[in-house]
Amino acid sequence: MDCSASQIMKNKLIMLIEPGKLLKNINCPEDLKKLNTKELHQLRDELRQFIIDNVSVYGGHFGASLGTVELTTALHYVFDTPKDQLVWDVGHQAYGHKILTGRRDQFHTNRVYGGISGFPKRKESEFDTFGVGHSSTSISAALGMAVANNEFKDDRHHIAVIGDGAMTGGMAFEAMNHAGDLQDTNLLIILNDNNMSIDPNVGALKDYLTDITTSKTYNKIKDEVWDLLGKVSKFGPNAQEIASKIENSTKAFFMQHSNLFESFNLRYFGPVDGHDLDHLVSVMRDLKSIKGPKLLHVLTTKGKGYAPAEKDQTKWHAPGTFDKVTGEIQKKPILSPQPPKYQEVFGHTIVELAKQNDKIMGVTPAMPSGCSLNIMMKAMPERAFDVGIAEQHAVTFSAGLATQGAVPFCNIYSTFMQRAYDQVIHDVCIQDLHVIFCLDRAGFAGADGPTHHGAYDLAYMRCIPNLVVMAPMNEQELRNMMFTAQLEKNARPFSIRYPRGKGVMPEWKTPLEEIQIGQGRKVKEGEDIAILTIGTVGNYALTAAEAVAKDANVAVYDMRFVKPLDEAMLHEVFRKFDKVITVEDGCLMGGFGSAVLEFMVDHQYTSKLKRLGIPDAIVEHGTQLELHQECGFDPEGIKNTIIEMLAPSNKTVNVQA
Amino acid sequence: MDCSASQIMKNKLIMLIEPGKLLKNINCPEDLKKLNTKELHQLRDELRQFIIDNVSVYGGHFGASLGTVELTTALHYVFDTPKDQLVWDVGHQAYGHKILTGRRDQFHTNRVYGGISGFPKRKESEFDTFGVGHSSTSISAALGMAVANNEFKDDRHHIAVIGDGAMTGGMAFEAMNHAGDLQDTNLLIILNDNNMSIDPNVGALKDYLTDITTSKTYNKIKDEVWDLLGKVSKFGPNAQEIASKIENSTKAFFMQHSNLFESFNLRYFGPVDGHDLDHLVSVMRDLKSIKGPKLLHVLTTKGKGYAPAEKDQTKWHAPGTFDKVTGEIQKKPILSPQPPKYQEVFGHTIVELAKQNDKIMGVTPAMPSGCSLNIMMKAMPERAFDVGIAEQHAVTFSAGLATQGAVPFCNIYSTFMQRAYDQVIHDVCIQDLHVIFCLDRAGFAGADGPTHHGAYDLAYMRCIPNLVVMAPMNEQELRNMMFTAQLEKNARPFSIRYPRGKGVMPEWKTPLEEIQIGQGRKVKEGEDIAILTIGTVGNYALTAAEAVAKDANVAVYDMRFVKPLDEAMLHEVFRKFDKVITVEDGCLMGGFGSAVLEFMVDHQYTSKLKRLGIPDAIVEHGTQLELHQECGFDPEGIKNTIIEMLAPSNKTVNVQA
Repeated sequence: MDCSASQIMKNKLIMLIEPGKLLKNINCPEDLKKLNTKELHQLRDELRQFIIDNVSVYGGHFGASLGTVELTTALHYVFDTPKDQLVWDVGHQAYGHKILTGRRDQFHTNRVYGGISGFPKRKESEFDTFGVGHSSTSISAALGMAVANNEFKDDRHHIAVIGDGAMTGGMAFEAMNHAGDLQDTNLLIILNDNNMSIDPNVGALKDYLTDITTSKTYNKIKDEVWDLLGKVSKFGPNAQEIASKIENSTKAFFMQHSNLFESFNLRYFGPVDGHDLDHLVSVMRDLKSIKGPKLLHVLTTKGKGYAPAEKDQTKWHAPGTFDKVTGEIQKKPILSPQPPKYQEVFGHTIVELAKQNDKIMGVTPAMPSGCSLNIMMKAMPERAFDVGIAEQHAVTFSAGLATQGAVPFCNIYSTFMQRAYDQVIHDVCIQDLHVIFCLDRAGFAGADGPTHHGAYDLAYMRCIPNLVVMAPMNEQELRNMMFTAQLEKNARPFSIRYPRGKGVMPEWKTPLEEIQIGQGRKVKEGEDIAILTIGTVGNYALTAAEAVAKDANVAVYDMRFVKPLDEAMLHEVFRKFDKVITVEDGCLMGGFGSAVLEFMVDHQYTSKLKRLGIPDAIVEHGTQLELHQECGFDPEGIKNTIIEMLAPSNKTVNVQA
Repeated sequence: MDCSASQIMKNKLIMLIEPGKLLKNINCPEDLKKLNTKELHQLRDELRQFIIDNVSVYGGHFGASLGTVELTTALHYVFDTPKDQLVWDVGHQAYGHKILTGRRDQFHTNRVYGGISGFPKRKESEFDTFGVGHSSTSISAALGMAVANNEFKDDRHHIAVIGDGAMTGGMAFEAMNHAGDLQDTNLLIILNDNNMSIDPNVGALKDYLTDITTSKTYNKIKDEVWDLLGKVSKFGPNAQEIASKIENSTKAFFMQHSNLFESFNLRYFGPVDGHDLDHLVSVMRDLKSIKGPKLLHVLTTKGKGYAPAEKDQTKWHAPGTFDKVTGEIQKKPILSPQPPKYQEVFGHTIVELAKQNDKIMGVTPAMPSGCSLNIMMKAMPERAFDVGIAEQHAVTFSAGLATQGAVPFCNIYSTFMQRAYDQVIHDVCIQDLHVIFCLDRAGFAGADGPTHHGAYDLAYMRCIPNLVVMAPMNEQELRNMMFTAQLEKNARPFSIRYPRGKGVMPEWKTPLEEIQIGQGRKVKEGEDIAILTIGTVGNYALTAAEAVAKDANVAVYDMRFVKPLDEAMLHEVFRKFDKVITVEDGCLMGGFGSAVLEFMVDHQYTSKLKRLGIPDAIVEHGTQLELHQECGFDPEGIKNTIIEMLAPSNKTVNVQA
């Protein structure tokens, strides 16, 4: 890992963040353990300030890590990390963990190309026991660790810290069901209950956690009964004792089963105040001596200790840079009309379409602000659903909607769609149902890195029968694809993928027009070489074609469809061109380029074909452009490939090696 | 759908099964509604007998459908199907439903090529509201239906029938969490609690359901308290009244939250005896008038009414044909030593390896008998885990094991691995962990049909970085691949896929030998054309090559690895042969053949290449051989392709169309 200052300096001016005087000397949790209680409180404050200071200058996830400052401090103070193993679910909340475990001085490189990852990552530190990013994996992972160490007679604690949002993901329940069966494992689940995902949490579980937290009903009844018994003194001095016995015996049974988590044979402790450091330390010390799978319910506030972040938790999940004094989030000066984000085009267009077609519904698994379905949720709340962190359910729920004639747009980030792959095949495509998948964040996610890159969807969607797989080159195409997909005559499954970030058309509110299914479009005529593209990289290809215009006349085709392919267009291309380049911001193995290859060889064309895209390797984090450059399909990379293919040494085509 | 007798006659002699005299006249649920209580009981008995009569002759799933005879009868008697919508989770249990909804006279074609499906299927009947096969989808689907019909003002009941096994699948919890938030939906979940999956259920939930069923603890305590109060008469006549008040007020709070399902805001009813038809009818009538999401807990016995099936429920899940009088399951006469099933080779070999390597562990999500991990679970129970119907957890749990130096073999059917796709990418492959996936039932599943075909794994696994993707041609190779994958020097993720059913080597216990990663093998020399194969279809290719031996000299290469490809071997092939055939029992889009294509074009070879495999379409059920024939990659199909490619008209290669 190269997270040297030089790497960072390339990107921006370094403003050195000075840690507090105690934090300055904490290089690992061993150092932490030397502090007394008073010092620990000071350290806690310095850690919180260091996070605020850093994120305000460098950006990153914010609210979640502020909420876990006490928890993080207590965990590393009480447990013997890294021998004791700590798994942070999702990992948004692990900045404090990184800072306390030897990465304080690299922390300004967080999420920067070449710098440290925004998530725990095994390659980065032995304290990062399990790489995270997607939700709800921590209990499974920690349970696996616990079982292995049981078998290997290795006495360690295994701790999964999971948010109440992540707890709604199905695999968390699968893991609890298994954990409850393994009473000899040393597993501690810490439920970090802040009532939030990125957006406010949804679902019944949220209400349940609030209920068991407040317990007002029970406490009220209890008080009333005691009060009553005090008054009914004729029962004598034993009355309250007997009553207590009745109460306790009744309670005894129900307590055994009274709690969702105890239903899974997990011992339940809490809830405790997650910002009371001393109490957390004391509770954790007690829990160390209790064997078996157990759950500690901790209440925290996202954004704790920074007032604006506590107040608007969604906005401050990952606010970008901000003025830490005023709490003003910095916006780049807008000099001219800017293109919208693709997600905004989705968000506005689905409302526009839903006004015309009352069958349209919207579904998102916990990403209303991330995918902009919140626009529809506000405009027509009865037709737009945030189903929680539950991608599998989101897809099959959409399938259920479709069986009744609804036309659901099910919006799931490309990387998270991996989690609903079976449901896409089994519940939607085998049944040929009219569900329209919109895959946001397709291609490189950018600073979130490999766990979040949407690298594989073109390959894993393309092999599913009945599914139309497409990607827009710009905002207008996205709108037209959405329009086309919802038409009654096109009642079948669709996948539309588009990237994170902004498009290319400041004037994006174009009239809605139908696209013929499986029809690409020629965006630039040419003679010397053809570039076939899918999605927004078509714009790169155009730039590259223009950059070599004086030396070569390059044709550019925006194929629009990975499936069905525009066969007429491909015949035209392969008849005319003996040199062809394909470009995609997806994996090269089995992706769009391979689809073109299959067509070419199936039809016995022998053009020379070069595929550009994401190689068969884990690509780390960085800006999208940095990663496109790394993979060689940025405009410069495409240009170089054109030049290379047109070089005289390449004139003799089809040479067998 | 062609389920005419003629289709079936091709396969076996029809033995006509006579339905009982009431059942004979039930052509749809409307007919059922005309029966009085006494007749309904008789119909129930006839239905059970008809299932026994049929399955004993024709085979199929057995125990689950016998267990739901009363439930099925009551549901169609009380509800207004198909207007009211019934979703059967998994669908093993829906034979009675099929028989009562117009498919009685086609029922002997169940699971036969061209006949009706073994699972509910939308194309087959309007009573089959949702196609099923994989577990835990029913609540999501029924909730989607309910929400759509709410929006469309269509007043229907939506009923999901889900087993206690399927309830452990994470998406069932995701769906309940969402359902609890939608209190205006007309959703009834029927928990069909028989304490079984195919194998006995595992996990904490199983114990919980038993606890709330028996409630002995609570009842015992309650009796004791009342007894005590009766004795302590000095409290006067009001004592029991007051005590009751205390008990009830305490209970009131805890009952609100006392039940796992009520934690999700679902109203809980039950448990009720699922074989008491009259009571079921009466309870369901009551539930019709209760709005909102609710759950009815029904206790049933798998195999109910057929003693041998009640006794050994795993064996009788799908017993094949049997003598219905003696209960003897018919076995085909064994005339000579038979090859083992691939799953048995897995089951015995993992034990053999685990004896040598104490890091090896075994993981299966609820398929111990289906994948033969039960052999290891018996031999070394502390190192082999059935984690329940929980594929996602199975994979990430395996990842957790691997972080501690364990070497888990995680065995999941190819079709079910779709459900853990994200975990394979995110938790295992991005982290490059030493987890060995064994994908049983790869290729066509056979009679289970499209929901269970393992058609896509080569494509969806191939695009994941760090993963070695391989498939054995026979038992010896499977053993050697397992041996190779667990070697410490090969610590990285592996995927080994093999088909359902028997291998080709009666003497399969060959010595364990290492295979070089990425090294294929030439199994037959040849001059005229090369066939490249992956997995067991290599045997078909050999047969085909021998069949044309007098006309052509065909080379056959067992590539063994889809990734990394044997590049040296491919250079050899493409230098030597201008005609190449690839064969795989996986999807043609992006699969093994495409990998070979990518290599060919990337290296500028221009051989004529024909890919054989599963087309981009939903292939229905039938025997594996029937389906291979349909797709043209059975021995005859391969032979025909050889002949076609070698025909004189094809002599001029590389013609541009």
